Amino acid sequence: MSELKDMSKDELISKREEYLKTYNNYKEMGLKLDMSRGKPGAKQLDISNELLNGPRDFHTSGNYDVRNYGVLEGLSETREIFSQIFNLPSKNIIIGGNSALNLIYDTFARVYLFGALGSTPWCKLPKVKILCPVPGYDRHFSICEEFGAEMISVPLKGDGPDMDMVEKLAAEDEAVKGIICVPLYSNPTGEIYSDDVIDRLVKMKTAAEDFRIFWDNAYAIHHIYKENTIANIFEYAEKYNTQDRIYMFFSTSKVTFPGSGVAIIAASDNNIKEIMKRMSIQTIGYDKVTQLSFAKFFKNAENVKNHMKKHAAILKPKFDMVNEILDANFEDNKMCQWLKPDGGYFVTVYTKEGCAREIVRLAKEAGVVLTEAGATHPYHLNPKDDCFRLAPTYPYLEELKTAMEVISACIKLATVNKALETM
Amino acid sequence: MSELKDMSKDELISKREEYLKTYNNYKEMGLKLDMSRGKPGAKQLDISNELLNGPRDFHTSGNYDVRNYGVLEGLSETREIFSQIFNLPSKNIIIGGNSALNLIYDTFARVYLFGALGSTPWCKLPKVKILCPVPGYDRHFSICEEFGAEMISVPLKGDGPDMDMVEKLAAEDEAVKGIICVPLYSNPTGEIYSDDVIDRLVKMKTAAEDFRIFWDNAYAIHHIYKENTIANIFEYAEKYNTQDRIYMFFSTSKVTFPGSGVAIIAASDNNIKEIMKRMSIQTIGYDKVTQLSFAKFFKNAENVKNHMKKHAAILKPKFDMVNEILDANFEDNKMCQWLKPDGGYFVTVYTKEGCAREIVRLAKEAGVVLTEAGATHPYHLNPKDDCFRLAPTYPYLEELKTAMEVISACIKLATVNKALETM
Repeated sequence: MSELKDMSKDELISKREEYLKTYNNYKEMGLKLDMSRGKPGAKQLDISNELLNGPRDFHTSGNYDVRNYGVLEGLSETREIFSQIFNLPSKNIIIGGNSALNLIYDTFARVYLFGALGSTPWCKLPKVKILCPVPGYDRHFSICEEFGAEMISVPLKGDGPDMDMVEKLAAEDEAVKGIICVPLYSNPTGEIYSDDVIDRLVKMKTAAEDFRIFWDNAYAIHHIYKENTIANIFEYAEKYNTQDRIYMFFSTSKVTFPGSGVAIIAASDNNIKEIMKRMSIQTIGYDKVTQLSFAKFFKNAENVKNHMKKHAAILKPKFDMVNEILDANFEDNKMCQWLKPDGGYFVTVYTKEGCAREIVRLAKEAGVVLTEAGATHPYHLNPKDDCFRLAPTYPYLEELKTAMEVISACIKLATVNKALETM
Repeated sequence: MSELKDMSKDELISKREEYLKTYNNYKEMGLKLDMSRGKPGAKQLDISNELLNGPRDFHTSGNYDVRNYGVLEGLSETREIFSQIFNLPSKNIIIGGNSALNLIYDTFARVYLFGALGSTPWCKLPKVKILCPVPGYDRHFSICEEFGAEMISVPLKGDGPDMDMVEKLAAEDEAVKGIICVPLYSNPTGEIYSDDVIDRLVKMKTAAEDFRIFWDNAYAIHHIYKENTIANIFEYAEKYNTQDRIYMFFSTSKVTFPGSGVAIIAASDNNIKEIMKRMSIQTIGYDKVTQLSFAKFFKNAENVKNHMKKHAAILKPKFDMVNEILDANFEDNKMCQWLKPDGGYFVTVYTKEGCAREIVRLAKEAGVVLTEAGATHPYHLNPKDDCFRLAPTYPYLEELKTAMEVISACIKLATVNKALETM
């Protein structure tokens, strides 16, 4: 097929009729499919069902009764598993509740209300700016927006954010207080931060003494095609004595059950001390029954990693399907391009400029709900309106196939409409 | 026995020798007993063990799969049980995590960071004052202190706080932003707020338009000797259209397992709307597996209340024991007085002025850990140093008996020492 840009108006109109017909056929099917959020599918949940039987025994290996109050930092045997996964000392890991997002929010709340290691509380400052690699995770942006932080978009370049830009902004403006990012299988592009990027993040001069890296390592072990790793940011920071700059987050929401697992924050000795002090005012402790279930179910990091291979086996056909349908529809034209991540939960589709929102709207009209197109950018504003996120994990394979056909039809229709409109 | 105040110096010295001997005998036993916190004992935990088997089925009655993301406000069947317990519409109840204390903290964080229903964020104000009925709960005071609120002690009068004082402070000073209290079986006095007190709390004029009552209804169903109830504060508030003034908290930490149950916040339609909006930024949702376990285990409020009778049956002998030993030691003198609550988790002991800290110190030296004496007051400052809190629920009955004998010996020794010192 030739490209739309080479077609005459009549050819385009005839294409539009063809595409519209296909689209309308899908629309008439009355579909109801949701590809908006990164949710595991039912088969993925099933592999952890044994957890629901709970810990038949409620004592830790140290014979501690988890049914009562105490152990604010989390059970040592549970922390030990994360220590193995992340190659960090247990003492630098706190288990906090069921949600990494909640821990990120709470960490924002703490620096806003109380400052970081003695710095001025961010809520007392006239302006706080946070660097946001884009395309990025909408819930990160929502937290920044909620706290009134000004978000500065920094483009991702294939191996992490544009570090020249990050370094310049961090060095020159003391209102720039941090960066929030997903360093492995970045949501939604699947980006993998390079060693060089990670080195520069901990090495760079920052005008703010309390600059913080909100390191949302959400997909640290969520491989699909290939088991990539990133550098241990804490190890790198040791070289420059900037360990206090880092807050790392992770949860088991996509290891066991979303919202019913455990979440961790990892940080330097100084930060852990401060977090524990403030956390001891916030709560008597998090749910240790859940922590013990996790520890008894997995026992060690090796078993967690093997468990993740089962997830990968379920997810691979879904990501294959996305590629297959997009290939079949767009291989020989330039209506869109898409990324092929090695892991994580998303596929990012780049469209012709000004088409993404319309594609998402058309898909919704046809019963396929996608994440809002602007959601990949701060304030929901992607100036080029040229990308959207696919979350292919939740639907069954057959549903996903249909959804991808619908989306392909939407891409075609929106693109030809745009071509006609701008003729 | 005659009173110490009627004794001569020689008589007092001889008393001191007698008391010191008894005390030293206990000290030599090398005891290790903890009566510092309101923790359930092991037998209480056992009655909920069935919960640890988890929900064999992970679908709600509406066939919703609780293993995945979603349902921020909490499962409807779980909320329904609390709706029955508190006689409040389900729509006014949100389930949030495992800890009421954490919900109180988060509610403070929200009003400090974002204000309440459009008011100025409290962190932007030069001064925020919170009314604190005393004796009160140390963890409440810690939260106020953490947020930098100035705490104003208001004496409890037997049926709640001194309302003349509360009304005056709230009406005259717009920096007075709220009151934090436990209205039934108040921690630690066991106070029960009267209908009149509750009516005045919701009726009173407040200089601050965003005055808030942090209504920590922690012991709402935690009866021991008698099943007392308090007025439904939301119902009372309706008369004056002040429902937005109230945030109510509760958790199942002392119904099932401390820290592994569910916590709720109940509030007006306006407040619920605001909390949900902000909570949707904070988290994708709380642990629904735990929520479903709770709902399946109890099914309805009636069963929860019957469960609480089992707790009462375990706790009654412990509270009896406290009374018995204190009676045996102090019935015929005036060295101390103590309250006899109908429910809750604590016994408050009033001592001679200036003795409470010394009693707690002596007990600690003899291996019996009590809550620090000042903890019942803001900033750990009880100007009279005349009261401390007993938490008799955690030790086994025999341990408790020994602990109470030790504490009695400490009271005697400290009191005679004080009498000699002030002679």
